[in-house]
Amino acid sequence: MSPAAPHDAVEVIIAKRNHGELTDSQIDWVVDAYTRGEVADEQMSALAMAILLNGMNRREIARWTHAMISSGERMDFSSLSRPTADKHSTGGVGDKITLPLAPLVAACGVAVPQLSGRGLGHTGGTLDKLESIPGWRALLSNEEMFDQLEDVGAVICAAGDGLAPADKKLYALRDVTGTVEAIPLIASSIMSKKIAEGTGALVLDVKVGTGAFMKSLDTARELAETMVALGTDAGVHTVALLTDMSTPLGLTAGNAIEVAESVEVLAGGGPADVVELTVALAREMLTGAGVTDVDPADKLADGSAMDAWKAMIRAQGGDPDAALPVARESHVVAAPATGTLTRLDAMAVGMAAWRLGAGRARKEDPVQAGAGVVWHARPGDDVTQGQPLFTLLTDEPARFERALESLEGGYDVGDGSSYEPTPVLLDRVG
Amino acid sequence: MSPAAPHDAVEVIIAKRNHGELTDSQIDWVVDAYTRGEVADEQMSALAMAILLNGMNRREIARWTHAMISSGERMDFSSLSRPTADKHSTGGVGDKITLPLAPLVAACGVAVPQLSGRGLGHTGGTLDKLESIPGWRALLSNEEMFDQLEDVGAVICAAGDGLAPADKKLYALRDVTGTVEAIPLIASSIMSKKIAEGTGALVLDVKVGTGAFMKSLDTARELAETMVALGTDAGVHTVALLTDMSTPLGLTAGNAIEVAESVEVLAGGGPADVVELTVALAREMLTGAGVTDVDPADKLADGSAMDAWKAMIRAQGGDPDAALPVARESHVVAAPATGTLTRLDAMAVGMAAWRLGAGRARKEDPVQAGAGVVWHARPGDDVTQGQPLFTLLTDEPARFERALESLEGGYDVGDGSSYEPTPVLLDRVG
Repeated sequence: MSPAAPHDAVEVIIAKRNHGELTDSQIDWVVDAYTRGEVADEQMSALAMAILLNGMNRREIARWTHAMISSGERMDFSSLSRPTADKHSTGGVGDKITLPLAPLVAACGVAVPQLSGRGLGHTGGTLDKLESIPGWRALLSNEEMFDQLEDVGAVICAAGDGLAPADKKLYALRDVTGTVEAIPLIASSIMSKKIAEGTGALVLDVKVGTGAFMKSLDTARELAETMVALGTDAGVHTVALLTDMSTPLGLTAGNAIEVAESVEVLAGGGPADVVELTVALAREMLTGAGVTDVDPADKLADGSAMDAWKAMIRAQGGDPDAALPVARESHVVAAPATGTLTRLDAMAVGMAAWRLGAGRARKEDPVQAGAGVVWHARPGDDVTQGQPLFTLLTDEPARFERALESLEGGYDVGDGSSYEPTPVLLDRVG
Repeated sequence: MSPAAPHDAVEVIIAKRNHGELTDSQIDWVVDAYTRGEVADEQMSALAMAILLNGMNRREIARWTHAMISSGERMDFSSLSRPTADKHSTGGVGDKITLPLAPLVAACGVAVPQLSGRGLGHTGGTLDKLESIPGWRALLSNEEMFDQLEDVGAVICAAGDGLAPADKKLYALRDVTGTVEAIPLIASSIMSKKIAEGTGALVLDVKVGTGAFMKSLDTARELAETMVALGTDAGVHTVALLTDMSTPLGLTAGNAIEVAESVEVLAGGGPADVVELTVALAREMLTGAGVTDVDPADKLADGSAMDAWKAMIRAQGGDPDAALPVARESHVVAAPATGTLTRLDAMAVGMAAWRLGAGRARKEDPVQAGAGVVWHARPGDDVTQGQPLFTLLTDEPARFERALESLEGGYDVGDGSSYEPTPVLLDRVG
């Protein structure tokens, strides 16, 4: 402990280890000292484990979030000519919703400053998907971002290093120390970035199911309630939708193939579940931003959402009309029987897409633009034995074997008479 | 995870985090990989916190101990001409027992291979005490140690780097990550060193009370039972005594002053509690080593324990007849009233001795040979207002002020009619 330090790391760790509440001063100090390197990684990981096992109350989580925001810069869009709203998804398989959603909401008159990430593991990353568009670039300066929001109304770009650097450092540490699954740390990680980003309204899409981080509705609801409280306390109009991720979204999981599916939605078509979730999230974002006289479904139908998409892609150097990359190799899995597709497991599909090269194992790995999985039926659809059920796509045929292993046991074809569809929208918090 | 690694750190951490039992293979791997640097400090500290909060069963603790032993060399004294027995104390204030005990047991025909440590914090270190003897050295080669055990029968020296290096690395990590107070980790730390040391019998002195690491009899008993089971499973005849550490032992806490008190005991005198505990531990060590026909009290009375002491000190370069260092400055605290000393708090005395320079704050700090606290009465003794109650000793008079603060509130003089003495020996396990 340096002479001027108000706390020391062991004292803070022991307080939480012994089921105590951390004081505001302890939280401010430990987050700041960790960011500066005064608190060591091995101390912060012990504290993270104690937080995971012993929890934090609402005040502690709010203060922790505040301390992470204070570790970096805060953006401010209050001088824009229109209100702002953003969306965050906790990550799902086939979750391309951000792609049609951002231009759709922009077409309704609300600016969307979406700072996104790259994928790690079985769920894809929004930036990875958009980077399959020739010319498109993820990195913008704050000034470019501001100008694009004013001109086009939607930006999807990489978060700069200046936003919540404490979170960046802590997230990398949690990843290698078995301390990812702590609701206080998940909630503060997400919300510190979203609050620092300066959005006026925020809609959280909290995924529930086999393909999601949260496997049960109860833990998902706890996370949603924690995040809504954090946003509300920070003056951001925040609501959360709990949505199904036992089944993957749409009919594709990958990069270029998800862009193509998103463009279909913007053209007024696309899979029903993707359209339903996109419109539901758009309505929440508009309401949060105080715009209640526009129906987003109309903006999909009249082509204005597509116009916003093209403008958004062009503004970041991309060609929205260029052909998308196509995988060099494909492999078709035929339906094993005639009947109804009664189950399609999101984790199995996500793992297959990841193993085909659509995702990365380590954050420095590249991804394949054309890789992924297309499924030709959704749960509830009838299929005929021998018809194509999946198409697997990759540039490297050696990847097929392990991808097929992932799919095995991940779907059922059988008697559909007792089949009950799972709704996409499960609950709302806020 | 390297291709050949059977486990990875995150998997092991998550298993314990989720209240699972670690397999033998997971434990062997994580201890070995941590020692080799493949498992990082931040991963081991998260695991240590999960172990602290979620516990380990007897099999896991035994395997963890075994893995720490396997990280280094094992000593073997089976070719000595006499049986071996050792003692370990969990650390107390004024706990100089090892000094008279080792030569006493040697005088009874049992060899004592005592590997000791230096003090950190308010409890003193055996090596620090012995180093106040002019010329005495703590470092011996394994061969010197073996020869001295054969010739003299007693060795007190520093543990070499080869013994349980995993424990050395883990202990330093636990110290800075708030994970010291985990019974599985405390027990395996102590027992891995004692089993690797190769003693045939072991007596554990588990301290209980305000001046001890274990504040309650229940947690002390749990630690004692865990360690006795570990020793027994490893083929070491192990018993534990639970002994009082709410009151400091004897009449001195420091380095040279504790050596002087130990020599008094070896000369057949000394404070009754020190004599009682020394003889009780000696009897347990002798029984454990299979020697039942010698009474250690006789060996104190007939001078043979003193002879063994002098031979032991000389064998390590020390002069047992040389004058001991004396502190340059002293300060007397007078009894505030006439009455009975009804309470003398071990932690208060230990902190005062530490602040006077007898102990160290960091492991690289030196200690003062002459510093410490002498108390002129024990609980139950009558005192007269104004008589000397404490003498504080240090080379640096600036240290008196904070030492006096430590003593404040650490003793009571009052009506002794309802005074009940606390026995030194509280319980026995094994």
